Parts: sequence; C-alpha cells; structure tokens
Amino acid sequence: MKFAIGVDLGGTNLRIAAISEGGELLAKVTTGTKVSLGRNAVVEEMTAAIHEVAAKFTQSGNLQGVGIGVPGIIDKRTGMLRESPNLPGWSDYPVKEEIERRLGAPVFLENDANAAALGEAWLGAARHVQEVCMLTLGTGVGGGIVLNGRPWHGMTGMAAELGHITVDPDGPKCGCGSYGCLEQFASATAVVRMAREAIRSGLAPELSQAEMTSGAEFGAKVVYNLALQGDKPAQQVFQKVGWALGIVLAGLVNTLNLHMYVIGGGVSSAWSAFAPTMFTELRRRSFVYAATAPDDITASIAEGASASLKPLGSSPRTVVTRALLGGDAGLYGASCPCWPPKD
Amino acid sequence: MKFAIGVDLGGTNLRIAAISEGGELLAKVTTGTKVSLGRNAVVEEMTAAIHEVAAKFTQSGNLQGVGIGVPGIIDKRTGMLRESPNLPGWSDYPVKEEIERRLGAPVFLENDANAAALGEAWLGAARHVQEVCMLTLGTGVGGGIVLNGRPWHGMTGMAAELGHITVDPDGPKCGCGSYGCLEQFASATAVVRMAREAIRSGLAPELSQAEMTSGAEFGAKVVYNLALQGDKPAQQVFQKVGWALGIVLAGLVNTLNLHMYVIGGGVSSAWSAFAPTMFTELRRRSFVYAATAPDDITASIAEGASASLKPLGSSPRTVVTRALLGGDAGLYGASCPCWPPKD
Repeated sequence: MKFAIGVDLGGTNLRIAAISEGGELLAKVTTGTKVSLGRNAVVEEMTAAIHEVAAKFTQSGNLQGVGIGVPGIIDKRTGMLRESPNLPGWSDYPVKEEIERRLGAPVFLENDANAAALGEAWLGAARHVQEVCMLTLGTGVGGGIVLNGRPWHGMTGMAAELGHITVDPDGPKCGCGSYGCLEQFASATAVVRMAREAIRSGLAPELSQAEMTSGAEFGAKVVYNLALQGDKPAQQVFQKVGWALGIVLAGLVNTLNLHMYVIGGGVSSAWSAFAPTMFTELRRRSFVYAATAPDDITASIAEGASASLKPLGSSPRTVVTRALLGGDAGLYGASCPCWPPKD
Repeated sequence: MKFAIGVDLGGTNLRIAAISEGGELLAKVTTGTKVSLGRNAVVEEMTAAIHEVAAKFTQSGNLQGVGIGVPGIIDKRTGMLRESPNLPGWSDYPVKEEIERRLGAPVFLENDANAAALGEAWLGAARHVQEVCMLTLGTGVGGGIVLNGRPWHGMTGMAAELGHITVDPDGPKCGCGSYGCLEQFASATAVVRMAREAIRSGLAPELSQAEMTSGAEFGAKVVYNLALQGDKPAQQVFQKVGWALGIVLAGLVNTLNLHMYVIGGGVSSAWSAFAPTMFTELRRRSFVYAATAPDDITASIAEGASASLKPLGSSPRTVVTRALLGGDAGLYGASCPCWPPKD
C-alpha cells in the first residue's frame, strides 16, 4: 500500500494525517503544538509526529512523501516561505530542505488554500472534474486553482491570490495595501466588521444585543444565526457577502471558464444566507455563466452541493457549489498522490 | 517549406495571409469583401482568396492548415459560432466543416482576441515566454490567454472574456447586460463616451471644439492628440482608461501570476497617456505584482515594449507591455504552427 503524510500547519496548531493512495484516511493527529512557540519547536514536534504516524504504516505501506500546507506564499524554487504573517520567523528558513533532511522523505510545500483546492479536486466536490477554482472563506479569503488535476502556481507560486481581487475600488482598506478586496467583504472578519457597522448605524438592535451578550465570542456564526432567525440587518450582511462573491466569481468565470467553482471555509456554512445574491450577481455579470448555468439553479442554491453530483452530460455546465471536505480539505490535498507537482 | 493560411474575418472586411512555419510573411491579401454582403458571399470569396494565396506556394510548400480568427464566441465541439454580433447569420452555420469541405485542408476557428494573443506569443511581445495574457483595446475589449504556448479555451471555449470583468460595480451599463465592465472604460467606444461626458459637463472646451470640428470623425485618436497637447480633460479620460486597466490587470496577476501581460488594439497607441495610472493602480492592487515588478518601471511606462526584450534572468518579473504586431497579431496567431490546438 502506498501512502502519504499530509500536514496542515495552521496559524494556531498543527494537524497531521496519513492517507492512502486511494484517499483513505489511515490516521489523523492534532498535536498540541502551538505555532506561537516558534519555528524550531514546531519543526521538532512536526517531524516527531510525522515519524510516529508514518511508523505505524511503514511495515505494511510505502511512504511516498510528505505534503505540508502552509498559510503563506511559498517560493517554489527555494522551498522557503516568502511571506506568512501567521508564521513569524519562518521566512528565509529552508523549510522543505530542513524537514526533508530530518525525515529522509521527499517534502512538498503548498499554500494552504491551494492544498484545500487540491483536496476538493481529489476527493471532494470537484472529484469528477480536472479543473476547479476554490475560494476558502476563513479569517481571510484564500484561493486555489487546479488545472489538469494540479495546482496552478503561476510564475512564482503566487497565483490564485483570489481574496485580493478588487470588488469595489473605493471599498474598505485591506491589509494587502489595496482597497475593496474580496477579503473585505467575504471573510469571517469582514462579516463581523459589516455587522459592527450596522450596529453603529443604530438600525440593528438584534445584532447590537447579540454583540453585548456574546462579547468576545461575537463572530460570523452569531451573525449567521440571527440571519437565519429572519433579522434583516444580519441578512443584509450576508447579502453583501454574496454580492462580493458573485462579482469575483463572474470575473473568474469570464477569465477561466472552468467547470467548477467551490466555496469552502467557515463562512461557507452560511451558504443559504449568501448564495441567492451570489448567483444573481454572477448571472448578471458573466454572460459566460448565464450561457452555461445549470438549469435548476434554485436547487443549487438550496442544496449547495447537489449540482456537483450530477453527471456532466453532453452540454457542459458551470457549477458553483459548496466544498465537501470541511476543515480536512487541506490535509487531503497535502497528501494527494498527484504529487510531486510538475510545475 | 511548411506554411499555413491565417484569416482575419473582421467585422468590416477580410484579410488573408500565407505564413511560413518559421513566421515569415509570404503573402498578405486584404479583400474588398464586405461582411455585410452576408455569409454565403463571404464564404465564397474567402475560399477563393485562400485558394489563390495557397496556390502560389503549393509548388514549393506544404499547406498545414487554415486558421480563421473570428470576432465572436466559438463552440469548439461543433465548429460553429455561438454568438457574434458583427457576423449576423453566422450562428448555427457549420463554418469549420463547410470551409474544410471546400478547401480540402484542416480548418481551425479561433476567437479573434485569442488569435491575437497567440500571435504575440509566437512572434510578438511575448515571443520568449510560454504564458501570456493579452488585452485588445478596440471598439470593444477582447482578451486572450495563452498557457503552455496554446490558447486557454476553458470548458466551452468562452474563456478570456476579459473585457467583461467588472471594474466598478455601479459603473455604466454594458452591452453584455452587466455594469461597469472593463470595456466601458478602456475601449475606443468608452474613450469617446467619456470625452462626451466631459464635454457635456461644460468643463472641456478643447474637447468640445474638437468634437465640432471633427464631426463624425471624433474618435479616440482625436482625444489622444488633445491629451498629448496637454489638455487636462482629455488626459483625465486616459487616466480613467489606465485606472480600469490597472484594476483588471491586478486581478489577472493575482489570479494567474503569469510572466507577461500584453496590451494591444488601437487604444494601446495611447500608452503614454494611460500607462502611468495603470501601473500605479496595478501596484497598489496586486501585492503579487508589487513583489515581482521590474526594477525600472519608469522605463516600462515610457517605452512600453522595452521590458519584454530583457533577458528574464534568475528572478522572474511580471511584465506588462505593449503589443508588437499591431493589427497583424490575429493574422499571425491564426496561422501559428502550434495548431492544431490540443484542447
């Protein structure tokens, strides 16, 4: 049996899985490793945990390699992190080489959003298609593009920074230095900011109440629950999420004309609250989408993932759907047997 | 000698060239064929002209095929035009089959903007790179993406409709049904519209004068000439062109991370008037661009094409530059020896 190790080196902790060539989850470990303890501690614990997990299967199996999903930009040529705000001290450190040396197995680094897209392409919503574009709506908004079954890295490994596509040129300032990026409308952080803007306007009493009650716990989930209960200001927040997603998806459909676009990450749980405006905007802003949209779009809105399960048939359709693997997409993607990547 | 025939089936007339495998222009014919005479007349004359041009070289050469660049969306599976406002009566007509039957040679249809991108990739500004994205600023705005030396068609051949990416969600209504598309800011039509808006505001006396003097000839070139002479309102029109191009290029760089982005079409002649704001906006809105921009951006702005001529070196750069083949890009692309396309 061939297997690989997938690692999700998140901003807060570290998860490791052994996954067979066929996509079977053999083992999954969430270590207590705090990324805040620093690079050396994390690398020590990571290699120890990988050794431990791999050891269980080396009798019966053959370790193909270790894929590590990292929140940041990776320089493909050097195997170093170029920029990673959540992993201070990791840039200019030869991550790939160092871990390869300790493990004696080939190591592949991948941006976490690319890894998630690859996971969904291998075993998730896009498992029947070769080409997929994924948006991961978390604290920020990540993007991944898979062409011909492989991540599209572009010239320097910086492709698919989809969270920083401009939605509204005069919109809120973004951490990247630009204004009105998708991330400013469709991340969990943006949902909370927009909810607070509504509260400050004085026209959102329920949101205001919820903010007081939940205190530091006031997050996208609280806003979504209010939207589900019919609170208009909370619903409007998610309509704005859908509006921004629709504009960016329209641009991606007009540019790439892929078969499938997958929305994942925590905020995607609020699908029912943002999908209607997302599809309205997408149809209005992309005649490519309008010409290739599935017939029963209402079903897609309601069920999210249903469209992806249908056979493709003779008339190709553009499918926008929810991710299926949840928080494990990146773990699966990191251990995908399509490694090593060609580019 | 192997050669191919390239055809540019424009909205007004028909151009045909015989081009050798090595990219040498063997012959070029511009027929008087009026597309307005209808489909049958055009197909008759086209095949006659292709026969005539090809006959000159069939003694010494070997016709590889005929590529036809068409302003419209092509259904790759059927070889028919899906939508082509400038070629009424051509949809649901088996163009490829019909012309193949008459010529006895393989025929390839390509969207004209894709053909232009392919031409620039083969012999123009992007001749040293495998991946390029091109914007053609004409009456409308066309787009073409070349990956691995071949046009990226997407699922249904509708990829790279870059003129219809949203720049300003609340911007002017576009013919495609959306609002604030790139085409509404960066086409020759948009330049004239924006100039007329300035005239109506009463704050553009020089433009107003030029409009009266030139009458029906009042076009993007007139506005550009005024901009060159230092007229502020005319300069502001092109600053808006650059602003919109910068926003869309930033999204494309963030999405694709290609080596080169080429700007062609008639409006690209006004490079000196729109490039400064284009680069400012691009740098602000794409940290991917900011991280990979050429060092001497001032030279790129001034010279346009200079950056493309430099060796790529060890540190890859994102180059945004002017097209080199002018109106012939599509003719060259249509006869590119990378045919037949794989996808």
